[in-house]
Amino acid sequence: MATDLDENTITAEAFCRLENTPDPRLHEIMKALTKHLHELARELKLTEDEWMKGIQFLTAAGHMSTGSRQELILLSDTLGLSQLVVAQSHSRPKEVSEQTVLGPFHVEGAPQLPSHGAEIARGSVGDPLLVSARVVDADGKPVADAVVDVWHAGADGFYDVQDPAWKLDESRLRGVFHTDEDGRFSYWTILPLYYPIPTDGPVGEMIRATKRHPYRPAHIHYRITHAGFDPLVTHIFVDGDEYLDSDCVFGVRSSCIGHYPKHEAGTAAPDGSKQPKAFYTNDSTFVLEREHAANAAE
Amino acid sequence: MATDLDENTITAEAFCRLENTPDPRLHEIMKALTKHLHELARELKLTEDEWMKGIQFLTAAGHMSTGSRQELILLSDTLGLSQLVVAQSHSRPKEVSEQTVLGPFHVEGAPQLPSHGAEIARGSVGDPLLVSARVVDADGKPVADAVVDVWHAGADGFYDVQDPAWKLDESRLRGVFHTDEDGRFSYWTILPLYYPIPTDGPVGEMIRATKRHPYRPAHIHYRITHAGFDPLVTHIFVDGDEYLDSDCVFGVRSSCIGHYPKHEAGTAAPDGSKQPKAFYTNDSTFVLEREHAANAAE
Repeated sequence: MATDLDENTITAEAFCRLENTPDPRLHEIMKALTKHLHELARELKLTEDEWMKGIQFLTAAGHMSTGSRQELILLSDTLGLSQLVVAQSHSRPKEVSEQTVLGPFHVEGAPQLPSHGAEIARGSVGDPLLVSARVVDADGKPVADAVVDVWHAGADGFYDVQDPAWKLDESRLRGVFHTDEDGRFSYWTILPLYYPIPTDGPVGEMIRATKRHPYRPAHIHYRITHAGFDPLVTHIFVDGDEYLDSDCVFGVRSSCIGHYPKHEAGTAAPDGSKQPKAFYTNDSTFVLEREHAANAAE
Repeated sequence: MATDLDENTITAEAFCRLENTPDPRLHEIMKALTKHLHELARELKLTEDEWMKGIQFLTAAGHMSTGSRQELILLSDTLGLSQLVVAQSHSRPKEVSEQTVLGPFHVEGAPQLPSHGAEIARGSVGDPLLVSARVVDADGKPVADAVVDVWHAGADGFYDVQDPAWKLDESRLRGVFHTDEDGRFSYWTILPLYYPIPTDGPVGEMIRATKRHPYRPAHIHYRITHAGFDPLVTHIFVDGDEYLDSDCVFGVRSSCIGHYPKHEAGTAAPDGSKQPKAFYTNDSTFVLEREHAANAAE
């Protein structure tokens, strides 16, 4: 009889209910989820009030999540879950670029831009930065026509999507490039600064209640895809940032810390443009990993 | 250096970030949550696609939750978490009524009704049922002026709040009673039947993907409160129901199975009313537990 279940006997009964799950992986996931949820509640002797606060917290996080703001990803990021999953999903050779978290601010369908010459700050105020990058394979050969999504926060710490008036076709600090025949792309933007994750939602409450700092070290997000290669989701962090050692979402890989040297006003060497004020440059190389035969065959 | 964290080293670093939490209970909860989330992801070797499906599932559950529909409670109920928390929160003496899950369909502010004589079906079609109940303390003494929330599904399996046109002041199968001087209240309604939990949301997807049945045995919900007593949240199930042994939310306590005898048309003995068709009765006694001195002092 599956009645009168107590806090211990209920777990075996919950497993029984999952026994007819046709997909073995789903069965495994549901069983492990049930086991850990139950163990968590028992270990804590979770009370009904605490349970209700948890329900309300997750509900509020769901309500806050829209096409351009994902509070549940932010929650996963700040609990270290996102980076854990990224880390265990990419045991890639050392010669290819390391992955880090996607974060909550990527959007699909950002404006398509030319491989070279675009300016993505579009009025966002900050120190000019010229990024010159190359996408290659593990043998160092250029990957032409790779699709490169770029997005980063402004000097005020906000991504464009955090502005209530944001529209996809008026994106700032965001764009999609295609690498040229030599695997290269470049663009002007502004130097990103460290910034706090958004703290106006339930994750912000958690950050305050646990007296953590909410900062991420300055970085630019990249997602680089090309048929035949494993998609690369990564950042290029700004070296010297004071939060490199305590990123609120645990995402810093030392191999992803980039050099952003400062230059006096004048002619910018990489593209010959005249710069009326001091500017920064960053040269980065992204190394893609070929899809494994097993993956490619799927 | 808290950079280059892998799927194993990230857990200790996540614990470090929680170390300044001022509230010791919150610290304990956050640490245990982090530990189990990380263990779950490692044990499963959760992939990025699976993680994203989880994010989307919780987001959809949040979006579906409103003032009158709580998909995250339904998720907790169907995973056995709710009943586990209820069970470990009430290690009450045998002589007092057992608790079970609140469920996702309770609403605050339902219509106030007289202690006796109300009819709460309000047009919902089914077999008439007269409930006559008494609220007492552990010594069997009546508890007058207890506030009794009642809610149950119709014969179609739906709660009133599941009707998009539902308004609080036009509630059906729902109401708030105050016990009389002898601790009694009574009302006419219709006999509830077993019903499926709502399967039009992400929890329904889970139920289908795991090939579980979605049914709950027939029951009436009660929440009974009175100053000086521990609030009682329980059901009175209908004996003989085929799903008593496999309640989709694990909520059946054998002490909460009630007798609902059928009577031929005629005069209803308890209130002397003339009944033109066969009807059912249920006599229930609810035994409240006095608040412990420790709780009362809070």
